[in-house]
Amino acid sequence: MFSRLLPVWSFFLLLTTLHPVAAVWPAPQSYTKGNTTLYLNQNIKVTYNGAFLPYTYGYVPSGFSSKEVVQAGVSRALSGIFESKFVPWVLHKPNSKFEPDVYQGQNWLKTLEIIQKAEDKPSAFKPLDNEVDESYNLTISTAGDVKLTAISSIGILRGLETFTQLFYQHSTGTSWYTPYAPVAIQDAPKFPHRGILLDTARHFFPVDDILRTIDAMAWSKLNRLHIHVTDSQSWPLVIPALPELSSKGAHHPSETYSPADIERIQKYGVHRGVEVYFEIDMPGHIGVVSLSHPELIVAYNEQPYYWWCAQPPCGAFKLNNSAVDDFLEKLFDDLFPRLHPYSAYFHTGGDELNKNDSMLDEGIRSNKSEVLQPLLQKFIDTQHSRVRKAKLTPVVWEEIPLEWNVTIGKDTVVQSWLGGASVKKLTAMGHKVIDSNYNFWYLDCGRGQWLSWDNGLAFETGYPFNDWCNPVKSWRLIYSHDPTAGLTEEEAKLVLGGELAVWSETIDPMNLDTIVWPRASAAGEVLWSGRIDPATGQNRSQIEATPRLNEFRERLVKRGVRASPIQMQFCVQGEAWECEYPM
Amino acid sequence: MFSRLLPVWSFFLLLTTLHPVAAVWPAPQSYTKGNTTLYLNQNIKVTYNGAFLPYTYGYVPSGFSSKEVVQAGVSRALSGIFESKFVPWVLHKPNSKFEPDVYQGQNWLKTLEIIQKAEDKPSAFKPLDNEVDESYNLTISTAGDVKLTAISSIGILRGLETFTQLFYQHSTGTSWYTPYAPVAIQDAPKFPHRGILLDTARHFFPVDDILRTIDAMAWSKLNRLHIHVTDSQSWPLVIPALPELSSKGAHHPSETYSPADIERIQKYGVHRGVEVYFEIDMPGHIGVVSLSHPELIVAYNEQPYYWWCAQPPCGAFKLNNSAVDDFLEKLFDDLFPRLHPYSAYFHTGGDELNKNDSMLDEGIRSNKSEVLQPLLQKFIDTQHSRVRKAKLTPVVWEEIPLEWNVTIGKDTVVQSWLGGASVKKLTAMGHKVIDSNYNFWYLDCGRGQWLSWDNGLAFETGYPFNDWCNPVKSWRLIYSHDPTAGLTEEEAKLVLGGELAVWSETIDPMNLDTIVWPRASAAGEVLWSGRIDPATGQNRSQIEATPRLNEFRERLVKRGVRASPIQMQFCVQGEAWECEYPM
Repeated sequence: MFSRLLPVWSFFLLLTTLHPVAAVWPAPQSYTKGNTTLYLNQNIKVTYNGAFLPYTYGYVPSGFSSKEVVQAGVSRALSGIFESKFVPWVLHKPNSKFEPDVYQGQNWLKTLEIIQKAEDKPSAFKPLDNEVDESYNLTISTAGDVKLTAISSIGILRGLETFTQLFYQHSTGTSWYTPYAPVAIQDAPKFPHRGILLDTARHFFPVDDILRTIDAMAWSKLNRLHIHVTDSQSWPLVIPALPELSSKGAHHPSETYSPADIERIQKYGVHRGVEVYFEIDMPGHIGVVSLSHPELIVAYNEQPYYWWCAQPPCGAFKLNNSAVDDFLEKLFDDLFPRLHPYSAYFHTGGDELNKNDSMLDEGIRSNKSEVLQPLLQKFIDTQHSRVRKAKLTPVVWEEIPLEWNVTIGKDTVVQSWLGGASVKKLTAMGHKVIDSNYNFWYLDCGRGQWLSWDNGLAFETGYPFNDWCNPVKSWRLIYSHDPTAGLTEEEAKLVLGGELAVWSETIDPMNLDTIVWPRASAAGEVLWSGRIDPATGQNRSQIEATPRLNEFRERLVKRGVRASPIQMQFCVQGEAWECEYPM
Repeated sequence: MFSRLLPVWSFFLLLTTLHPVAAVWPAPQSYTKGNTTLYLNQNIKVTYNGAFLPYTYGYVPSGFSSKEVVQAGVSRALSGIFESKFVPWVLHKPNSKFEPDVYQGQNWLKTLEIIQKAEDKPSAFKPLDNEVDESYNLTISTAGDVKLTAISSIGILRGLETFTQLFYQHSTGTSWYTPYAPVAIQDAPKFPHRGILLDTARHFFPVDDILRTIDAMAWSKLNRLHIHVTDSQSWPLVIPALPELSSKGAHHPSETYSPADIERIQKYGVHRGVEVYFEIDMPGHIGVVSLSHPELIVAYNEQPYYWWCAQPPCGAFKLNNSAVDDFLEKLFDDLFPRLHPYSAYFHTGGDELNKNDSMLDEGIRSNKSEVLQPLLQKFIDTQHSRVRKAKLTPVVWEEIPLEWNVTIGKDTVVQSWLGGASVKKLTAMGHKVIDSNYNFWYLDCGRGQWLSWDNGLAFETGYPFNDWCNPVKSWRLIYSHDPTAGLTEEEAKLVLGGELAVWSETIDPMNLDTIVWPRASAAGEVLWSGRIDPATGQNRSQIEATPRLNEFRERLVKRGVRASPIQMQFCVQGEAWECEYPM
């Protein structure tokens, strides 16, 4: 009874003991910390399975041995602490004492002992989902000894990222410390597939933008970059056996990915535990091929576009034409051997194929499912067998099994963009699923129409010019989404994880970072840590998450990513109750 | 009858003759152009009222004579052409011929003759709205003579900006050309007040961000930067007579504006025809003063905040306390003499004052309008007489006259954020109005809640966590808005123009550019060129505007502003009909 008499907000005052927050994003499965300050400098002795591992600033690995992966990870982790200059005044009230007195003597971190408990499997650096153990344990003793253990080198990378997030720079400029010793963390991901889909066809992203995205993914413990590399709008991918594809289909010669670019992106990802895989969307969403191979495509840039596809320019493969198959054989024979060393997957697309396209196909002249379905079944069978022959695993969009009733292999992973009922159906059918529910995880939504609407009836039809998936998915909405909601336990096991979608109608290098970050990190926590907080058994609360995401966002900015703020600075500096909806 | 038989999209094909577009944003009132190519180099002979004006790269003016303003403008215009490296392949189909053959001989621009037809009035560089004539005429003959005439030096700056937008860099790298000669432009603004409101209290923006914003404003022919410099969240403004305001109220010592910073921002604006003026919002939205002068403020950071104000932290001046008046006298005596040399206006705020605050004021203890209104009337009378004494003109938010029935001076400008019916009421009352209708021109809207919502009832209340003014105002919606819609001719004359609002709850230097640009430019065209196209007498069409805004956006990017794309690159490179909603 007494508590009911207290003003509502007095409870929030009690929460101040939670501040400063536990810092790490995404939240570890188990995490205890103390309040002893330990300092870090470049003399920390690093060992890997007992052998001395020198810390080299900017270490560039020459290959993919476990040792090289770990050594490069250590170099990045320590550099990340020393170089990012993150003095955390922005997380504390103005004029407050927020850091240790550096002149009161410093206790130093002495050792960073890294132990990998098993040898990496050959697939460690291009795993199928669930093939690599990403778990790790991290302890920091008050005596200054750090111990990081994991099964795989990828687990070690995850632990190093967590380690990085425990440190701040002192405002005096040349000291780095953690105020949280002793630390004990046990951690492992909830879902094996935690990704971002980046569309490089509607706008081109230079390699550096992609590498920076991979960096921020690794910091967020996201591990799959799905590059939707072509679409009806452009073909930036250089295929040496078919050079006309990019020479006629790229926006500009400067906006292409050479084989060396692709390899560089993939290798960069491997070293950060981010598997990069590619999608060539077909048989729809491929109109651009018409610019170099018009005989293979129907309905290219037909108008009114909505009769033939979801957005201009339209264009699909002819479904009953052996030349398409010959073309794809040549394309895949060139591409797959180059992708295979660093990817386990290849995505053949399959979304939004419009039946009307085949009305224009002189070899079909029908939009009837009973005519088209067997042709599509054959198309998928043929192409997926090529994917498998190249030792890749096919991924398709949900329409292939759900809308077209095409039978796909048990190995095939299905990506759902409609989410919800589709995920339920797919898992009930026994399919492995990647969830990209557009109501939650489409990062491009809500910023308005890109089509132009003329005055008159079009204006009235389009007004107020919201886009199809309005509104913007705020991080709070993104964070509320559980990819396994509504599923049975058996069904939930088939959900490999999810991907945030970055369709690039109105996204290019100028605004990429501000749109993706830190919202993708919010989903990253759902995918790594789980929607449920193990400490409470309840859904994770924004109250606990917000200050941690504020801190993580500051770290993104300090490490070179133009992440958007999620709150005004008063809130970032304040206590959680000050910017909580009071109820 | 024949035309009805043509397919719908054939009409769009006819529109291709409009391409390439007229390039200039905002659209001039009258504009004819040809298709002769003229080249530009640094040897162009520039004169100003007959006297030779040497082109000096990066010319830094020492003062504010008309000649210095013009000379600096010429330097920026030419540097803008030479330095921005805008090779316009991005506006043309891949693999198309989009530029002149530089080896086929070059016809050169010979002279740029600038004539200012009247002497600048003393107020030219800090005008009241309607006090400066911004019109200009610009002609380029096929013989290579450019003539730019204007009444004021500000008009010349506007014409120079138009001139800049007629040029491209050749892909060979060392040639610059316009393909549009002969050119004849007559131009003048529709509205005298074309502004942006930037909130520097919820996030701080370093001086460089503000200067870059002024640059992009000048390129868009926007001319008023309203800096909402303080709010309940922070006080970044250094007041030497009251240093405690910023030392206790700023987010951090590094996040303050010194008097030298303020002067630098204002002078930078003057040289670009952008008048910078400041708002200290009161008597609400001023809680931060409580950190240094708690005796002046009621309800600071009270919870639940919604009982006392619109967002945390709450806080308002005591309305019946002479110490408040003494404080403001000291504040204004320090501030106004520094602002006055470069500003005509000072904004005293007045939005969202919550009557309940005075329940906590020991000198009032009432939330009754009949008690508070006379106190507020006296408060406004006193402070506005101080504003006038400093030879500044007061600006207030609409609540002061409309909600509180406070009588304000005839000189006073009223800013409306509710728009529509409020603008109608205010102009019917005879008030001069700045329109910032939040349904159209609030650039911060639609990106989600920044408040945190706990699990349980709060979660259900807040879900799906849209913000109060959802959705995002796309440039198409922004562009559809006429600030004088629904007004009589007499009422419309009182609308001085409008301001785009950049409230910074979730905006900081990381995403400022991507959020403001090019959306503010879209309103810039409504305010400069008018919602109606004089050529057709109809509302301007997105079909005509979109390719011009695409081009202007590319110029923003090339000149260093991280403006967001408004269409996918296929559309930017294509013909208007290809990305038009077909109807």
